[in-house]
Amino acid sequence: MTIIYTLDLLGTMMFAISGAMAANRNNVDVFGAGFTGFVTAIGGGSLRDIFLNIRPVWVEDGNYIIAISFGVLIALTFNKQIYTLARTLSLFDAIGIGFFTVVGVEKSLNYESNAIAAVLLGMFSASMGGVIRDVLLNRTPLILRREIYATACIAGATLFVILHNLEVEPAVNAFISASLVFLIRIISVRYNLSLPAVKQINKKAP
Amino acid sequence: MTIIYTLDLLGTMMFAISGAMAANRNNVDVFGAGFTGFVTAIGGGSLRDIFLNIRPVWVEDGNYIIAISFGVLIALTFNKQIYTLARTLSLFDAIGIGFFTVVGVEKSLNYESNAIAAVLLGMFSASMGGVIRDVLLNRTPLILRREIYATACIAGATLFVILHNLEVEPAVNAFISASLVFLIRIISVRYNLSLPAVKQINKKAP
Amino acid sequence: MTIIYTLDLLGTMMFAISGAMAANRNNVDVFGAGFTGFVTAIGGGSLRDIFLNIRPVWVEDGNYIIAISFGVLIALTFNKQIYTLARTLSLFDAIGIGFFTVVGVEKSLNYESNAIAAVLLGMFSASMGGVIRDVLLNRTPLILRREIYATACIAGATLFVILHNLEVEPAVNAFISASLVFLIRIISVRYNLSLPAVKQINKKAP
Repeated sequence: MTIIYTLDLLGTMMFAISGAMAANRNNVDVFGAGFTGFVTAIGGGSLRDIFLNIRPVWVEDGNYIIAISFGVLIALTFNKQIYTLARTLSLFDAIGIGFFTVVGVEKSLNYESNAIAAVLLGMFSASMGGVIRDVLLNRTPLILRREIYATACIAGATLFVILHNLEVEPAVNAFISASLVFLIRIISVRYNLSLPAVKQINKKAP
Repeated sequence: MTIIYTLDLLGTMMFAISGAMAANRNNVDVFGAGFTGFVTAIGGGSLRDIFLNIRPVWVEDGNYIIAISFGVLIALTFNKQIYTLARTLSLFDAIGIGFFTVVGVEKSLNYESNAIAAVLLGMFSASMGGVIRDVLLNRTPLILRREIYATACIAGATLFVILHNLEVEPAVNAFISASLVFLIRIISVRYNLSLPAVKQINKKAP
Repeated sequence: MTIIYTLDLLGTMMFAISGAMAANRNNVDVFGAGFTGFVTAIGGGSLRDIFLNIRPVWVEDGNYIIAISFGVLIALTFNKQIYTLARTLSLFDAIGIGFFTVVGVEKSLNYESNAIAAVLLGMFSASMGGVIRDVLLNRTPLILRREIYATACIAGATLFVILHNLEVEPAVNAFISASLVFLIRIISVRYNLSLPAVKQINKKAP
């Protein structure tokens, strides 16, 4: 339990760092960077909780906002150094989305969503923070583009639901499913894989 | 009951098709088209349910997500053919928004919103999916422009509330009110009617 | 109680006026202006209530929507005159955000959010309506830019929480904290103060 909680806080901090770094490119002020970091970090989980009709965790537990504030401070202070770590960060990001996907699916199943909705809500947990960030910064959201990101989350979330129904031990299930998200994401980045654009499909149509 | 349920699933599928088709113009990948279809289909009803503080229907009932998936598949496969049916589709769209408006008002009244809020929530049910779609695709939402769309929903929703207070039989009320939405929408498309822009009004000001 | 309620309705109307005026610059129709006014007026408080998992007040109480409709009518009718009052309006706006911040923090504390979340939810109450307005109109939200707006709300909200914990009389606390928001905002407008942009901070980094 304490490990999950610590990982959740760490993951939230990582998302806050990435959000604040993204805002950086839009000539925003320090508050804007903090706000974007906050929204990126809590957006996905909050949306999941709103759909489940429960309170987002940060409303109950102040530690999440403290973790986010640390993340934003780190992003503002070590801005240049973090850019040089981009490759390392994409590794952490892949771990993070695997973790958040699995936490999101499990929570949705616990709160009795149906299995298909749980898959979507798991993907939301990991990727909607970034979507809200992009909408705020007036960009077309990255996940609509040709990168394999949310698709990796959906694959891992689907695996989690299947193993859950097969009554696999939750911790084992979480590890396997998060690893699937991680592997798909890392492999698609390394080999520059992408989903076909809609137009390519259309060309095959008669 | 079963007819309403089937119509609701069909309407949801139609909205998913229209969302996926719209994404098509933004050079998105197949996931992006599916995501936009999903958001367009569930956005309006989900927002209504969030304001009513209840769970969106798709979190409880997986059939909605299945209907959406079918809609997205249809949009991706029969893309070109659907474009040639644009005129027919706008007919179905007008039926759809009438239906969703009435379902939305009725649900809001059942969950004890006040009458004016019920009118707005009915309009939201039918038109906010499209607004969220446009925001995601980085466009100014269509309903802010000079087309009569949400206004038709508001007219039908207002009529529903009035007839509801006059204790008209619900099925009759639903049919009449949805027809009003349909007629206003169809007539405004046929005769290219629009609401005055704000600037025109200003010119009348001294 | 009645004074607070009247002020809340008046503040909501003011926000509706400012929202409808902003839409004006985007060549929208009268419905678009009304819709933008509505969203600006209820966006912040609704988001707060959604995070607190309670129903937004306008769903229960129709007077808010009536107040908004008046605001939109005023904006459409006296458009030109209002522009000439811009300086006066920014005074009212500063009073308004102070008031909404304090109402938002107090409500959040009453509904048992943690103290840090209450500060953020107070700031949300006063400023997220404008963020949603800007996103709808396809602009980068003003509060991400270099103006001191949400920061003033955070300062006042923090003061409210501190005085609340020191068990200062609620009415006194509300007056002092709202005044702090007002003063910071007015002074920063008068002397053209702003927060540092992220890039300036980066230059200090080695």
